[in-house]
Amino acid sequence: MDLENVCVVLPAGGCGVRMEMDTPKQYCKVLNRPLILYTIHSFHRLSWIKMIVVVVDVSYLEFMQNLLTKYKFTKVKIVTGSPTRHRSIYNGVKALETVCKPDDVVIIHDAVRMFTDEQTITQIAMAAKEHKASGVYRPLISTVIAPDSDGFLEESLDRNRYRASEMPQGFHYSVISAAYQKTTDYDFDYGTECLLLASKYSGVKARLVEGSSNLWKVTHKKDIFAAEGVLKESDISVCLNCEDIHLRESLMKQLQHKKFKIHGLQEGQNKENNVEPSVFIHVLDCNEHLTQHMVACSDEFISHCDNSACYLLDRVLLLVVREIPCESNHLTIIRLMQNLKKIHQDKETLVYCVVYQDETQIEQLIEMVTSVVWNRDPVLSGQVLFVS
Amino acid sequence: MDLENVCVVLPAGGCGVRMEMDTPKQYCKVLNRPLILYTIHSFHRLSWIKMIVVVVDVSYLEFMQNLLTKYKFTKVKIVTGSPTRHRSIYNGVKALETVCKPDDVVIIHDAVRMFTDEQTITQIAMAAKEHKASGVYRPLISTVIAPDSDGFLEESLDRNRYRASEMPQGFHYSVISAAYQKTTDYDFDYGTECLLLASKYSGVKARLVEGSSNLWKVTHKKDIFAAEGVLKESDISVCLNCEDIHLRESLMKQLQHKKFKIHGLQEGQNKENNVEPSVFIHVLDCNEHLTQHMVACSDEFISHCDNSACYLLDRVLLLVVREIPCESNHLTIIRLMQNLKKIHQDKETLVYCVVYQDETQIEQLIEMVTSVVWNRDPVLSGQVLFVS
Repeated sequence: MDLENVCVVLPAGGCGVRMEMDTPKQYCKVLNRPLILYTIHSFHRLSWIKMIVVVVDVSYLEFMQNLLTKYKFTKVKIVTGSPTRHRSIYNGVKALETVCKPDDVVIIHDAVRMFTDEQTITQIAMAAKEHKASGVYRPLISTVIAPDSDGFLEESLDRNRYRASEMPQGFHYSVISAAYQKTTDYDFDYGTECLLLASKYSGVKARLVEGSSNLWKVTHKKDIFAAEGVLKESDISVCLNCEDIHLRESLMKQLQHKKFKIHGLQEGQNKENNVEPSVFIHVLDCNEHLTQHMVACSDEFISHCDNSACYLLDRVLLLVVREIPCESNHLTIIRLMQNLKKIHQDKETLVYCVVYQDETQIEQLIEMVTSVVWNRDPVLSGQVLFVS
Repeated sequence: MDLENVCVVLPAGGCGVRMEMDTPKQYCKVLNRPLILYTIHSFHRLSWIKMIVVVVDVSYLEFMQNLLTKYKFTKVKIVTGSPTRHRSIYNGVKALETVCKPDDVVIIHDAVRMFTDEQTITQIAMAAKEHKASGVYRPLISTVIAPDSDGFLEESLDRNRYRASEMPQGFHYSVISAAYQKTTDYDFDYGTECLLLASKYSGVKARLVEGSSNLWKVTHKKDIFAAEGVLKESDISVCLNCEDIHLRESLMKQLQHKKFKIHGLQEGQNKENNVEPSVFIHVLDCNEHLTQHMVACSDEFISHCDNSACYLLDRVLLLVVREIPCESNHLTIIRLMQNLKKIHQDKETLVYCVVYQDETQIEQLIEMVTSVVWNRDPVLSGQVLFVS
């Protein structure tokens, strides 16, 4: 089936009352990046997605434009929003008038569902192409009940019959466009589901598809913590430089055990699966050239980062130093790292130094490296940590 | 209303298939403690809760017994579970036969809802006392739909009429006990809601109460991250020792700005609100007695921890040192901290040292302190961190 002209509309005008924050939730920081960046990325990475229309409040136009430039998102069009969700989506749909043919698929999604997987997006697009409308569902996690007018339990629904309707949803351009043209003011203001509008105004019954458990919405503060945890544990590709072959083997094995991917190692990988590394580890011997080596690693790292697109996570340079026998070296290294931190500060790159004594400490070294990389704590950038 | 004889049944026999882990989810580690510990605590802290019956699989009997002893939970009774949730709950209810009068309230909860607030528990208990049965609900977060037999959208429910039924739920002892005595094998195996059983078998219509947003279940791995984030940001009480009055004022103000509570400071506090401090900060001058002072702080901290109940979070000792002018001191302090780390290792206490230069660095110092305390990273215990 032809999935070449699929477009996406991402309404992002909400004001995030539930987060009890000043920032609308789609712009809340998740690992130091606005949440919506991850949502855009989940569609932008797919070659068969032609265009993503992001609908933002007029006050966020410039912010969004800068974001797209910085992270080199080339397939995104920004449109200004309207006060309600459906009017915003309609603005997005109208922006596709000259882009979509009547039977091209338009996917509608939520800006605050960050982790939509390729399989779900593909299924929704295919089902929409074939059946004119499609929606994703998940099993109910709670029993659905109805109270009577006095606040007592009146009805309890059969959990086997019902589902939770989630996003994304997909439509032929002609179906969603025609539906919105006929939508009443009341439905523009109070309607919740695009699926219902398509059914009510275009007479199209949507095909339902079961989605993955990644489709959850960021709604409360706790969901930001959840999102950060998921990102920290997701595919982290590590570039490991270590001249000592035995040590390298041993480190590699243990890093893989911690679910890191060693860059350039996966067999039979194609370019798409070969995630660009976000962590660069250099194992250095403590000899008279140590500080020069550290500076050289840092320079090389910065030049690499300058030459590639901004990354969705802060990139990490981790200098692992073996043995510092001479006491005075400690202070030298601490001061050097403080200087490197300053150099890296504005580049969204983090730099850490971990010092270990000998090969009996490999296990503790790996614990330390794992913790530093997982946390990517900007406050700890520039620190020298001692394995013991 | 009399809320003095309220008991709780906590079924904890599930096998946690959704977490894709070997450990059942109620025993998964959340900030280094089994999840269920926090759930038990949320009821155990309330003086009017008389007894908590925890229903566990026979293989976890000893584990649970040790946990209760270690964390000094004195009001808990352990009962062995049955293969299904309702049979487990019934086991718990039967264990209360000699404890509850017929109209005493029994609250049923889920082991994986860690953050139930006092207000919700009180409301459920009061409503159950008055109306014989009560349940908590939340607004629906997704539209509820029903597919037809071909997988197309057939029905979409009015979101205003329906609610999500959550836990806890409350019952007169006689109501829930009688209901379970009559429950069929089919309902024991496939029934989901205690509210329904009470209605079906005891003819009692439950009073519904709106609950807070804290009632969410830990279901997937992401929820563990969410739970850890919530705990890290929750009421953290700090004990601050600093002889320099101006510095103390300045640190206090900034720590409060970061939402820490300074121990012993809140006006008009009663004992209940005066959370026991879990973080002890000592600001030390770098003079010839520094190392002795550091050791003394550590000794005092350990003796304090030994004399008080285990805490729900790892306790933190944070030594803030001002200026290390003499170079050789660096290594001395690094080695000393490595030794202190070893001493604290088995006591669920963490020890960190933060070194700053002068008062122009107060802001960066606070950033560092906040990060260290929030993360409570056991891997970084024993490290010396330099503010720059």
